[in-house]
Amino acid sequence: MSKKAVCLLSGGLDSSVTAYIAKKQGYEIYALTIKYGQRHKKEIDSAKQIASSLNAKKHVIIDLNLRKFGGSSLTDKTLDIEIDHKLEDIGKKIPSTYVPARNTIFLSIALAYAEVVNAETIFIGATATDYSGYPDCRPEYFEAFQKMADLATKKGIQGKKIKIKTPLLKLSKKDIVKKGSKLRVPFEKTWSCYKGGTKACGRCDSCLLRLKGFKEANMKDPIEYQSILD
Amino acid sequence: MSKKAVCLLSGGLDSSVTAYIAKKQGYEIYALTIKYGQRHKKEIDSAKQIASSLNAKKHVIIDLNLRKFGGSSLTDKTLDIEIDHKLEDIGKKIPSTYVPARNTIFLSIALAYAEVVNAETIFIGATATDYSGYPDCRPEYFEAFQKMADLATKKGIQGKKIKIKTPLLKLSKKDIVKKGSKLRVPFEKTWSCYKGGTKACGRCDSCLLRLKGFKEANMKDPIEYQSILD
Repeated sequence: MSKKAVCLLSGGLDSSVTAYIAKKQGYEIYALTIKYGQRHKKEIDSAKQIASSLNAKKHVIIDLNLRKFGGSSLTDKTLDIEIDHKLEDIGKKIPSTYVPARNTIFLSIALAYAEVVNAETIFIGATATDYSGYPDCRPEYFEAFQKMADLATKKGIQGKKIKIKTPLLKLSKKDIVKKGSKLRVPFEKTWSCYKGGTKACGRCDSCLLRLKGFKEANMKDPIEYQSILD
Repeated sequence: MSKKAVCLLSGGLDSSVTAYIAKKQGYEIYALTIKYGQRHKKEIDSAKQIASSLNAKKHVIIDLNLRKFGGSSLTDKTLDIEIDHKLEDIGKKIPSTYVPARNTIFLSIALAYAEVVNAETIFIGATATDYSGYPDCRPEYFEAFQKMADLATKKGIQGKKIKIKTPLLKLSKKDIVKKGSKLRVPFEKTWSCYKGGTKACGRCDSCLLRLKGFKEANMKDPIEYQSILD
């Protein structure tokens, strides 16, 4: 019987590359996407396409309406998403796109799913290098989550701990793009932009970091952008 | 400005007493109920009534359909809920009513809510004395969650940690009933039974522990039961 992994799949570049890494490592993939009330459905469609491309055993989409809380420009349309940051400024302070406790909520739901399907591993595509400065993307956060998770579950106390893996944590966007390219991730199906137009905006932090990654990897990003930046 | 607390409120005995403790301690109450796909809506109605009774500032009900995963008799109607356990056997092994990672998911969502409304405290009515043996009700679990939470949030890294309080953790059901009585918790509005009939079954672990609590406190439980046990 093959080993199983729950892969948190947003449909973005990072989570897609991560799921392909899990696949490459021989895991049977249980993809998990959380619709948390983000502005647009575009990344959900991307997640479906990626789950299908990598031949996931299952893909579960869970609704969780964090709009009821608000507090983030990703879930509250009355707040503006920052644009046109200088690359060197991204990550210096926590931006409006920070969704309170998002990774904690995502990993908790993944933990439940992993326990039910008897998966030994959870993959999450967090990165702490070219990133937006979210507190729940830092290595020390994931270590603390792992310790908590080991105590939280039936499997954990029976000695079969569920391991949380963050293979991109220390990679630059350049290296993520290179790795994804090697694994033949269908980049054209991924969606990173915080906004939900027909084309990516090219100006939000997520677009800026993605474009930087492709540029430094000497590759062309196959998705379309509203404006030409280089 | 009064201090604020997010209170996880299931509508059961323990969470209701806990919310009244928070109120007594002077907190403004932000009640939070998670509809996670449990068998019945009865406890949601109870939660609404309790939130109203204690004059909560807000009561948010969040939908999260854990039935998509299954794996617990509380969310999967094809699984049986154990009944007629001997009291001394309850808590010795993890029963079918265990919902994988439930407290972790609940606390994570509470953490998001607390961060958004700027609450300094989260209250959860977990108990590790007269309890069902769930791993995520043990003191060491809550300590690990606290450490993780301190690293997870914007508030946490800014030095304003959100404190998780479990005032019932070491209390017996008898003491919980006594405390609730002293605080004038409207017990008749609470619902503890794992099943969802018009009357409580009186035979599931939750009913058995509740009845034990009232009996040992020399009080009559005001809710109706299907069968007379004593």
